Amino acid sequence: MMRTRPLKVALLGCGVVGSEVARIMTTHADDLTARIGAPVELAGVAVRRPSKVREGIDPALVTTDATALLKRGDIDVAIEVIGGIEPARTLITTAFEHGISVVSANKALLAQDGASLHAAAEQAGLDLYYEAAVAGAIPLVRPMRESLAGDKINRVMGIVNGTTNFILDKMDSTGAGYQEALDEATALGYAEADPTADVEGYDAAAKAAILAGIAFHTRVRLDDVYREGMTEVSAADFASAKRMGCTIKLLAILERAADGESVTARVHPAMIPLSHPLASVREAYNAVFVEAEAAGRLMFYGPGAGGSPTASAVLGDLVAVCRNKLAEATGPGESAYTQLPVSPMGDVVTRYHISLDVADKPGVLAQVATTFAEHGVSIDTVRQQGKDGEASLVVVTHRAPDAALSGTVEALRKLDTVRGVASIMRVEGE
Amino acid sequence: MMRTRPLKVALLGCGVVGSEVARIMTTHADDLTARIGAPVELAGVAVRRPSKVREGIDPALVTTDATALLKRGDIDVAIEVIGGIEPARTLITTAFEHGISVVSANKALLAQDGASLHAAAEQAGLDLYYEAAVAGAIPLVRPMRESLAGDKINRVMGIVNGTTNFILDKMDSTGAGYQEALDEATALGYAEADPTADVEGYDAAAKAAILAGIAFHTRVRLDDVYREGMTEVSAADFASAKRMGCTIKLLAILERAADGESVTARVHPAMIPLSHPLASVREAYNAVFVEAEAAGRLMFYGPGAGGSPTASAVLGDLVAVCRNKLAEATGPGESAYTQLPVSPMGDVVTRYHISLDVADKPGVLAQVATTFAEHGVSIDTVRQQGKDGEASLVVVTHRAPDAALSGTVEALRKLDTVRGVASIMRVEGE
Repeated sequence: MMRTRPLKVALLGCGVVGSEVARIMTTHADDLTARIGAPVELAGVAVRRPSKVREGIDPALVTTDATALLKRGDIDVAIEVIGGIEPARTLITTAFEHGISVVSANKALLAQDGASLHAAAEQAGLDLYYEAAVAGAIPLVRPMRESLAGDKINRVMGIVNGTTNFILDKMDSTGAGYQEALDEATALGYAEADPTADVEGYDAAAKAAILAGIAFHTRVRLDDVYREGMTEVSAADFASAKRMGCTIKLLAILERAADGESVTARVHPAMIPLSHPLASVREAYNAVFVEAEAAGRLMFYGPGAGGSPTASAVLGDLVAVCRNKLAEATGPGESAYTQLPVSPMGDVVTRYHISLDVADKPGVLAQVATTFAEHGVSIDTVRQQGKDGEASLVVVTHRAPDAALSGTVEALRKLDTVRGVASIMRVEGE
Repeated sequence: MMRTRPLKVALLGCGVVGSEVARIMTTHADDLTARIGAPVELAGVAVRRPSKVREGIDPALVTTDATALLKRGDIDVAIEVIGGIEPARTLITTAFEHGISVVSANKALLAQDGASLHAAAEQAGLDLYYEAAVAGAIPLVRPMRESLAGDKINRVMGIVNGTTNFILDKMDSTGAGYQEALDEATALGYAEADPTADVEGYDAAAKAAILAGIAFHTRVRLDDVYREGMTEVSAADFASAKRMGCTIKLLAILERAADGESVTARVHPAMIPLSHPLASVREAYNAVFVEAEAAGRLMFYGPGAGGSPTASAVLGDLVAVCRNKLAEATGPGESAYTQLPVSPMGDVVTRYHISLDVADKPGVLAQVATTFAEHGVSIDTVRQQGKDGEASLVVVTHRAPDAALSGTVEALRKLDTVRGVASIMRVEGE
């Protein structure tokens, strides 16, 4: 089985993840050789700043010309850990044109151009693996597209962004407000200086698009994913959640419609019961809950980011791609045969938790209840609190289409007895 | 890509799992075809009792002669869901002799004869897949041997038996004793009439042997696994656990020694902190916690048994094996290159929680403490309770080799001030 000519790897990018990939390839070379069935050799490292000292990496391997590295003719596998759209996209395409399989950790690129990249890989008879693009080290892409290949996934609900989970966990456990928790996350290195991609849900939406495609064997574009950030979540929302036996998480939720003919994909903060396995996912950990027809309820949990965990996922893919190369085979490519349409957010059926500031006078509750009824939204519970002419109403609805719920809220805002809508939050996981 | 000649499958066994496999193969035939790249056909079903009515299965496919089915020349893949050692072992061997790849759900057989079956598969250039053998529907074998193929697993700690977890969860949540909880598990169908294989840890030990082999790339035999059942766990133990902020679980624990030169494998009840992700695994669910060098702490959670979940795992393997057949390749076989020895239980380093009934007189604590010190076991905490001339001592130790701990307990039993050792339990997961 063992051959002696090594498989040659081009590493594109050498930041936090890339340097860790290079380190493990060197320190664990014997293990990788045994598991692949052939030695694997780091043949070149493409970087932007060649002058930077990179411990453990032979300077002779470093180049600024990634394209030339891919074109030189002896590379078997390219590892793309540059991130972002360009030059990553062009380099991956170049790799496929030169018979090179690709392992990528690039969620933004996969979410935006997954279909065309998969097509290019398939046409060339090559592999495109990307376990690291979703939920870091947590094995998720492979279990969903291989272990559950004989099952039907109906629902995926996940915490796929560690930064926002850290912030929400802090708010929950300490009673802190959003800004205070964000500041702590930034100080500890969990949030970037510009946290927009995380807190506005863009990062989670990219992962949601990738996961939805795999889960439902259909193509889900980034634009198909409804997205709401978590910057408006307040300490008061956590207090309300606690009264309901819930906590608040930023969730990516992918669902097959009840009739099986369409799917939905969305990212937003939501209340979930404390008894739900996702509720106890603390700090910056990620976890993804999968409901499949035969398998039932599964959960995958682990670190969703960081150099080492991401490198672990990249190297698992590297072993698989190298084994495929040796067998002259390819792993599973894109599976989009169901061609299910993605329905808009309005079609999602869910529950709402709504806090209203209302006038403290008779008839307010009746007026509010009538508004819900007019929009076909059934109320589960109402809690009324009044003091000094001011009052608040907390309404939790039964399940209804999101369009009906947002129509209700719009109408409530117009009632002269409603002074304001203090918060609206979906309730999931029940 | 699509070919029209179907891949032919022989189903060996048609009990709870087998009938569910057959049902899904029929109802989800189009999905399986799309995911495999060729149609897959149930070509024969070998059973013991052919007269039994099997809904949805063409009676013309049913045979009592499994060997003839495998030898008839057109079978591509055999699914073995008979269980037990024979005739399963001989049939799998026969399959390999006739160019047939095998998907098995047979933990007992894999734990006992995995090495020879893997060798037979490899020699014949065929696949042996067995995701369903460990933790039912939870993708675990594939993530461990493929997703983590570029990483180094140092520790696996899992709840791999649903029956015992149901019993222990009942004891924890209701304060019931072992017998009462077992009776409820039996009444609800979670425990078999003879629960020995579950409650004495035999089932978990078989899974532990399989998982240890995969985790450490070495061969771990069933006899290498230290095994202790959970029939002695009492309501008093749960009360003690609660005082420590712990619960009690039956755990399969697989560890690489600190020097990396050996491994240990064991199954026993243990206290774990309530903050540990495994502590919140309720009812009959399974979960496996994996610590890898680069990936960090991962957990896989889901239903560990049952017809549908197990069928889901079998069918995921079926898709993979069929895809391999079409690509004229094979998936990863046994990986035992590290050849690490398995150390005995005495070498395991852990902590003990020990309850002693002692005479309520001065000097007892000093005598007990001396005994621990003589065996090189350092005490973390001692709690002393006395009433009416009787007293109890609860000692929690620091980490020490299991041999030193059991030596300490043996010596304690000989002290005339120690009336009895009420319970001994290991403390894990800290």
